[in-house]
Amino acid sequence: MSIYDQGLDKCAANYAPLTPSTFLQRAARVYAHRVAVVHGDLERDYASLYSRSRALASALAQQGVGEGDTVSVIAPNTPEMLELHFGVPMSQGVLNTINTRLDPAAVAFMMDFAEAKVLFVDRAYAQLAKDSLTQMKSQPLVIGIDDDLEPEGEVIGEMDYEEFLSTGDPEFDWQEPADEWQAISLNFTSGTTGNPKGVVYHHRGAYLNAMSAIIAFNLGASPSYLWTVPMFHCNGWCCPWAVTAAGGTHVCLRKVDPALIYELINRHSVSHMGGAPTVLNMILNAPETVRRELPAQGVSISTGGAAPPSAVIAGMQKLGFHVAHLYGLTEVYGPSHWCEWQTEWDDLDDRGQMLKMARQGVPCLTINDHCVLNTETGEVVPEDGQTIGELVMRGNTVMKGYLKNPAATEEAFAGGWFHSGDLAVMHPDYYAEIKDRSKDIIISGGENISSLEVEELLYQHPDVMEAAVVARPDDNWGETPCAFVCLKTQSDGSLTETTLIEWCRERMAHFKCPKTVVFGPLPKTSTGKIQKFVLRERAEQLDTL
Amino acid sequence: MSIYDQGLDKCAANYAPLTPSTFLQRAARVYAHRVAVVHGDLERDYASLYSRSRALASALAQQGVGEGDTVSVIAPNTPEMLELHFGVPMSQGVLNTINTRLDPAAVAFMMDFAEAKVLFVDRAYAQLAKDSLTQMKSQPLVIGIDDDLEPEGEVIGEMDYEEFLSTGDPEFDWQEPADEWQAISLNFTSGTTGNPKGVVYHHRGAYLNAMSAIIAFNLGASPSYLWTVPMFHCNGWCCPWAVTAAGGTHVCLRKVDPALIYELINRHSVSHMGGAPTVLNMILNAPETVRRELPAQGVSISTGGAAPPSAVIAGMQKLGFHVAHLYGLTEVYGPSHWCEWQTEWDDLDDRGQMLKMARQGVPCLTINDHCVLNTETGEVVPEDGQTIGELVMRGNTVMKGYLKNPAATEEAFAGGWFHSGDLAVMHPDYYAEIKDRSKDIIISGGENISSLEVEELLYQHPDVMEAAVVARPDDNWGETPCAFVCLKTQSDGSLTETTLIEWCRERMAHFKCPKTVVFGPLPKTSTGKIQKFVLRERAEQLDTL
Repeated sequence: MSIYDQGLDKCAANYAPLTPSTFLQRAARVYAHRVAVVHGDLERDYASLYSRSRALASALAQQGVGEGDTVSVIAPNTPEMLELHFGVPMSQGVLNTINTRLDPAAVAFMMDFAEAKVLFVDRAYAQLAKDSLTQMKSQPLVIGIDDDLEPEGEVIGEMDYEEFLSTGDPEFDWQEPADEWQAISLNFTSGTTGNPKGVVYHHRGAYLNAMSAIIAFNLGASPSYLWTVPMFHCNGWCCPWAVTAAGGTHVCLRKVDPALIYELINRHSVSHMGGAPTVLNMILNAPETVRRELPAQGVSISTGGAAPPSAVIAGMQKLGFHVAHLYGLTEVYGPSHWCEWQTEWDDLDDRGQMLKMARQGVPCLTINDHCVLNTETGEVVPEDGQTIGELVMRGNTVMKGYLKNPAATEEAFAGGWFHSGDLAVMHPDYYAEIKDRSKDIIISGGENISSLEVEELLYQHPDVMEAAVVARPDDNWGETPCAFVCLKTQSDGSLTETTLIEWCRERMAHFKCPKTVVFGPLPKTSTGKIQKFVLRERAEQLDTL
Repeated sequence: MSIYDQGLDKCAANYAPLTPSTFLQRAARVYAHRVAVVHGDLERDYASLYSRSRALASALAQQGVGEGDTVSVIAPNTPEMLELHFGVPMSQGVLNTINTRLDPAAVAFMMDFAEAKVLFVDRAYAQLAKDSLTQMKSQPLVIGIDDDLEPEGEVIGEMDYEEFLSTGDPEFDWQEPADEWQAISLNFTSGTTGNPKGVVYHHRGAYLNAMSAIIAFNLGASPSYLWTVPMFHCNGWCCPWAVTAAGGTHVCLRKVDPALIYELINRHSVSHMGGAPTVLNMILNAPETVRRELPAQGVSISTGGAAPPSAVIAGMQKLGFHVAHLYGLTEVYGPSHWCEWQTEWDDLDDRGQMLKMARQGVPCLTINDHCVLNTETGEVVPEDGQTIGELVMRGNTVMKGYLKNPAATEEAFAGGWFHSGDLAVMHPDYYAEIKDRSKDIIISGGENISSLEVEELLYQHPDVMEAAVVARPDDNWGETPCAFVCLKTQSDGSLTETTLIEWCRERMAHFKCPKTVVFGPLPKTSTGKIQKFVLRERAEQLDTL
């Protein structure tokens, strides 16, 4: 034993399990009277957010919630949802936020699987909750959430949220988890096939990811954060914790509505927000009448999911938004990568800058490494920006694993890497670029076609608002690219399948161009992702017509 | 066992011991060709800093350095010193940086106590090293560091640094520590009485403190950091690691010289730096001829140690420096507190703002709590900004403990708090304000007098450049305040002991005013702190004259 291991143990003075709950405790002292939460005309300061969260933790503890007990919630981005991100962990429980757009069967499956003890339901989702509860094997305690901003639905359950809070002690002496590896939340993957998997986060990872997010998003002192990213999606990329650590203001938002977004940005001098590329699209294509002036310093907007088409990035920059491109998955607490700007890119022309920015980027500080592996051999592929393989990563902000699914956990962590399931290339500068979700690659006549690449081109057409490309079965080629396209409202309607395909063929290798084009609105998930599995089904049905 | 503890263990994909070495690994990939280090005309990029640090780790490992082995260094802020902050931890060794202004007896004591296996010595300190080695019981391997910017001294030892590096493998497969609680460095306190104590840092704390420093200093993307704070002082407040994590440029500096500081700020567009209040004083009082234009965005300067007199803060702001006030100790990895600016202070007048800024402030994100305890009863004092007690804190960036000194460790951590030994008041807004080091308080006629308060007043006198106040034994009062004052060079020499005391009595309670004033230069430590123990001795001798 070395001299440095003798009499130098952990004690209460020099060690505490990492937990993001401490960020709120600190904020309540350092920023006691700063506005923590805004919702419509309601404003609460950090002292109030903390005492309400403590009362919530206390009320939960009185109901028997403790370590490893699941507390589910079906709600949009309201003050109650934010409080649950602190109150549940402070009670030692596990927060399970549920996607509000799911069907009752899926919600019932999740809550049974998670053995939910308590369910919080916003009034807008009363019917979904009731239908889910009738399908469940066990019955959690139900607490309804009322909201002045929501006229629809009924407040269901044993009691409403405010009554429940009044049963708790606002000075509750909450405890840190005994072990920072203890679970803090459960997020189900959107799972397009089979049952969704339950991704488990721990206190340590949530703490570290929040620190990393402050740095990556450059939140600075007292940011104003607009809640466009659903908190039920990877716990809102851990921003309930990060924004609180930075002493920022949480600007709540029930619905992603461009008019409301512009109004809130203007009214609350929003400095930071996030969203899927479709959210950017919505902001970009909002009618002139709902647009409002942005704060002088502009608004930083981080966009995840698929790479935003370069035309969208350029349009947003013109409006005064600073677009940062992120990449992540539920399994890595939200964003694991960001396309960090390099000073030498300042000298590139617009097109050169867009090509750099279209890449998913480099791992954040808490992800120790990433690489691209050949999907057949498992070998690391050359860093040439060309060779496609699976993007893998490892580090302290990778999930604990999948709940009650050791086989899936083992598969995801095979070889000491987390396997993203996304196909990517590695550039010589360590920037990863996603070429496709494994299932989104189109194999036509033995050639791999990146559906993202075809979409990127389609977005450059002046009449195209949104586009998604999937494989359509073909007897001759195996598969061919099939494009689903939603046109801008102001387009003159002259664009046809033939003229759009011709336009593509002038700009891209012919084998990559869509063979079929279908016009109309695109189906989306609650987080704004285009539902490609729905489009794939449609493309298959086209074949049988 | 809860469902969240089954099949959800740590593995290579989702867990890695926290260590700041990973920041350099990442920087070498993400910022490969960005300038990492500047020293005179020398520039090295991150790829080079990483490969040199790996070669260093490899060379050390070949010499048998491993977990718990001490590697000492006597050097100023040079590229080699920076490399040692990565190479030693990557070898699993413990970095022991030694204050270059100590005498050979103290240095010999430290190295024997730490059982140093290797000693790196910059040529300027060859004589100090030789004298120390002759007094040591054991003999470490000595490696000399040459430096083109240093004409003095000789390069001593078995071989020089570059030769030593050439024995190592620049692609060395270094390992993270098996446990993040493993020691990373050893910093001796400046200890004014008795033998210095060896403060042990661990990898986890260094990692977390670096993250916290990026946020507290608001380093942003690619900062340019001027090395005015000695790296042998709390490992340069953990900035070797923080600046690297942020992909910044380390601008090296052998000596704190105002002309050189202005030149480097101008030449390398320095964005951030730190320093004791005396460094600020030096910059402020530098002759016009050596002053250079600052970068347009100004320079953020963090100042620790004693609270900077408000006149100094105001003067620096006028020059274009943004002054942040920090507080910390060796035992807490450097700064544990910073005087975080509150937006409502924008509305205060200059004097009001200065009063707020003069306070040491709130704990950083990685310190979980702080309070002020009554030194007699151990009870928490009222948060009234009036009641003096000892400032205590706890969290993950508190040292492992004192090396080979369990009694001192236990005393420092008594009651689950780290005891700072500093006397402070707690304001109602959770900001701590240091009133004095315990030993610096003056007790006169039963009244406690804060020497800092008297100094603060003296600094407001237009002719005073520096002032320090200590207790002078007095038969009648017990103690009286004795002021040591260094006048500005441009003062006309008309100020006398009597007129200065009179000036004080017009502005402060009479019992607090100096009873004695001694004019002349003040003795300082290598880190620019005024050596009050020397002044206390002088004050005692005055009594016997």
